[in-house]
Amino acid sequence: MSHPSDIEIARNAHKKPIAEVAARLGLRPDQVLPYGHDKAKLGAGALAARRAGGGQRGRLILVTAINPTPAGEGKTTTTVGLGDGLNAIGKNAAICLREPSLGPCFGMKGGATGGGRAQVVPMDAINLHFTGDFHAISAAHNLLAAMIDNHLHWGNALDLDPRRITWRRVLDMNDRSLRQVATGLGGAANGFVRETGFDITVASEVMAILCLAEDLDDLERRLGAIIVGYRRDQSPVFARDLKADGAMAALLKEAMQPNLVQTIENNPALVHGGPFANIAHGCNSVIATKAALSMADYVVTEAGFGADLGAEKFLNIKCRQAGLAPDAVVLVASIRALKMNGGVAKGDLGVENVAAVEAGCANLGRHMENIAKFGLPVVVGLNRFATDTDAEADAVIAYCEARGVPAFLNTHWAEGSAGIRAMAEHVAALADQGAANFTPLYADDLGLQAKIERVAREIYRADGVALAPRVARQLADWEAQGHGRLPVCIAKTQYSFSADPGRLGAPTGHTLPVREVRLAAGAGFVVALAGDIMTMPGLPRQPAAEAITLTDAGEIDGLF
Amino acid sequence: MSHPSDIEIARNAHKKPIAEVAARLGLRPDQVLPYGHDKAKLGAGALAARRAGGGQRGRLILVTAINPTPAGEGKTTTTVGLGDGLNAIGKNAAICLREPSLGPCFGMKGGATGGGRAQVVPMDAINLHFTGDFHAISAAHNLLAAMIDNHLHWGNALDLDPRRITWRRVLDMNDRSLRQVATGLGGAANGFVRETGFDITVASEVMAILCLAEDLDDLERRLGAIIVGYRRDQSPVFARDLKADGAMAALLKEAMQPNLVQTIENNPALVHGGPFANIAHGCNSVIATKAALSMADYVVTEAGFGADLGAEKFLNIKCRQAGLAPDAVVLVASIRALKMNGGVAKGDLGVENVAAVEAGCANLGRHMENIAKFGLPVVVGLNRFATDTDAEADAVIAYCEARGVPAFLNTHWAEGSAGIRAMAEHVAALADQGAANFTPLYADDLGLQAKIERVAREIYRADGVALAPRVARQLADWEAQGHGRLPVCIAKTQYSFSADPGRLGAPTGHTLPVREVRLAAGAGFVVALAGDIMTMPGLPRQPAAEAITLTDAGEIDGLF
Repeated sequence: MSHPSDIEIARNAHKKPIAEVAARLGLRPDQVLPYGHDKAKLGAGALAARRAGGGQRGRLILVTAINPTPAGEGKTTTTVGLGDGLNAIGKNAAICLREPSLGPCFGMKGGATGGGRAQVVPMDAINLHFTGDFHAISAAHNLLAAMIDNHLHWGNALDLDPRRITWRRVLDMNDRSLRQVATGLGGAANGFVRETGFDITVASEVMAILCLAEDLDDLERRLGAIIVGYRRDQSPVFARDLKADGAMAALLKEAMQPNLVQTIENNPALVHGGPFANIAHGCNSVIATKAALSMADYVVTEAGFGADLGAEKFLNIKCRQAGLAPDAVVLVASIRALKMNGGVAKGDLGVENVAAVEAGCANLGRHMENIAKFGLPVVVGLNRFATDTDAEADAVIAYCEARGVPAFLNTHWAEGSAGIRAMAEHVAALADQGAANFTPLYADDLGLQAKIERVAREIYRADGVALAPRVARQLADWEAQGHGRLPVCIAKTQYSFSADPGRLGAPTGHTLPVREVRLAAGAGFVVALAGDIMTMPGLPRQPAAEAITLTDAGEIDGLF
Repeated sequence: MSHPSDIEIARNAHKKPIAEVAARLGLRPDQVLPYGHDKAKLGAGALAARRAGGGQRGRLILVTAINPTPAGEGKTTTTVGLGDGLNAIGKNAAICLREPSLGPCFGMKGGATGGGRAQVVPMDAINLHFTGDFHAISAAHNLLAAMIDNHLHWGNALDLDPRRITWRRVLDMNDRSLRQVATGLGGAANGFVRETGFDITVASEVMAILCLAEDLDDLERRLGAIIVGYRRDQSPVFARDLKADGAMAALLKEAMQPNLVQTIENNPALVHGGPFANIAHGCNSVIATKAALSMADYVVTEAGFGADLGAEKFLNIKCRQAGLAPDAVVLVASIRALKMNGGVAKGDLGVENVAAVEAGCANLGRHMENIAKFGLPVVVGLNRFATDTDAEADAVIAYCEARGVPAFLNTHWAEGSAGIRAMAEHVAALADQGAANFTPLYADDLGLQAKIERVAREIYRADGVALAPRVARQLADWEAQGHGRLPVCIAKTQYSFSADPGRLGAPTGHTLPVREVRLAAGAGFVVALAGDIMTMPGLPRQPAAEAITLTDAGEIDGLF
């Protein structure tokens, strides 16, 4: 069975003019800013009208997943498919996705626009520069960095300790050589020598800020609150002390406007923001989610990685800060991924193994329980692959039904909305029922350390937390400085409930080791680093870039 | 007398929808890609139609200037004003400008969209991200850099000498700390340690390539021909050896499409490409100039810095490569700048000083002679400032008339097209006359060293060239390798005909010292570095960024 590639399907999509897609959301042509004929940004006027109009009208549906494996789960594909499915059954639904990062397109991860017949288009443009949001974030981030070193160069009136500058630079590129660099070499005219490094743009606090800010005022306030480093007496120096916040906000003005594109089935999708789900919160922007909720009856969105990382942060950080509450949650799994969670190696996935599927369901089950702890109703969406057998699928459905959770076998990848109608009907009804009673996992006034412990015990099922010696002291200092009410953003491997990427399934008997904490005062959370975190990826031996090319017709080929 | 600021004038401009501006050039709505309602790119279809249609129909008018001084000359302002003036007298004229660099907007240079009533709009958007072209160039440049270090990391099959890697990285930012850096610190996982640096994006060879490429095929071929470094045996390693050219071209696909905006008087302007006029050739893109020439009867364009750098490169590099030939040249001067060339300090510019003006005219006169050496007719455009006196203006006009060159006193800065009609009438007639008989200053088959000498003697009026010892050897090697037919791109201070920025006016008795040469094999020229060249600016003590902010209405303020 030979399928066309994702980029072929995307290229052959019958796209509607973006003004027609905007009209589906009730937007007039003057309320959107076109970027070509198939992309647009919501104009400032449209956003102001939304706020003036009183906000939410739609139901919010979160799509999350089991722990990811190399087998593939299909979270984005299911998000797009469910949006198309809801529209296919006559609902007015919009989709909210994150923007893909440019760097991984040239490495090995590929893009992030869905797949098969459940994609947003134009696939190539969205995966590359799109409307320039990430470039604007890089520029704003690096302007602040340049102003820091410039401040040192001209006399350091703020008395910043050059050894304690925490603000690094960013590039939207996989470039391991930039992880750790020495800058300012070459003599006095080039400033002071110091050690620093580059992260990938999606790891920037500016990215997290853009995704959490309610409007331009909130954006500028948060940018000003960024801590760039510390003085000798450990007191923080803020971006506003360098007077960088205004210019950074000016650079981000257009990037703050959500992007509108369409699915292959011509349904509206807002694709906006894309922070890492490990060191940041991994969700699309608050401004896009709220705009969508004001214009559609159902809004389907996703959160990064598995539910232990993505959904937890979506609920404890994004929903808490923005006052959002989901009406239903879809937990995505694939039989292949459950098998790997049940102990099967990737090379053996083609062989039927019902016992392994059943064993892997422990991972699924724990995520189901976790979502229930937030007071939210859950549905399981099984993303069907060609190699799955009926016996394997039946085993998962039986597992879910035994726990009172409906499970659906979806074929939207191959069939588009026709392959996910049953789940769409169920999810719409579930969201309408009012069964959700959302409560974050912890209150604002719980201590920072206690918040980390709460997530570790309740979500990861750890026996406890092991803090590096200075971490507890650091958390106590921040509480004394007034940052104690912030939520925590735990940076942990996405492959396991534990901090050990090799422990699949539903591990127990583990402890969460926290080696370092970072204060993202502008984004409004405290990052707790558990294990190794990669904030700048590298390219593989054979980068995907080598195969990317322009066809004779000027089309981009080789993206996946 | 209080004038509104440039950004206030720009903000209050009565912009027409960009589709109406496009219609002025005969473009249908489907032939342009809108970026918002006031910017667009020419679509691939429009560019193909232009090529199929046989190309040039319009007259090409080059605007250049005397050597720049801190007093201001007004080259961009005159380019925009002349375009508006030609339209005001009933001609169908288009303007071709370079895109401003983001970095200097936050330093002290400000933007580059003209000034007063001779501006292109939207001023803030053009000066900041515009349509993302420079970001795309940065990404393509840095992808190649990442692929080079990645190649070393995975075994260096091409046997590249890590000490002889010439390809650096770029950021569109003024950041002196990045001029010289050590990368790959932190252990084996981060690659090999080596010394390298960052240039500002406008200094990238990718920028020069984008501006000289005829189409996407030519772009990809040129990108592949970039030399990234050398082996131990001195043989070059090309970007195509790393298989980076396809992905780089894919990143640049949209950036290759010229941008369309409008003047305050609603006339069409293509703003596309912006290479440095010192280490690169400093002109807008060939693709934009040719597109404009196919759609308008008169095309007004500018070249960077004074005529010794900008016009020389426009004529010897851009026109040579692209097969273009100007029909007339406008040489811009201001009385203030002539006074500084005549020995007056900036603080004394407000005092009438006819003798100094007359002395400074030596600079103007030499540029007039130089332009004649290319077989081109020249007109002097004096950009009137409020402090100029009539006696000073009369002195300049008399100087020009004595040499048979018409000179016009223009007030487009204050009055728009009404202030430049007389010069517009004259230039249109001059261009129509067929008086131009363009010949480059040297033939392709002159040796590389002889080409440098020809420019030094004929244009700079140097007594000769002093080559550093290895330079002559290097040039001979390149000739042996087949690069001898390339034109030369001399990197020299813009403030003087000589390599000494302090020698204003029309210095004689100097020698051009060439300390280093670089082969830009993709762009297609050999760079000869004479004196210190800054490829990464720094921010001043008080960066302009500190004053940039968003107003309550969400408008950008503080740009200049």
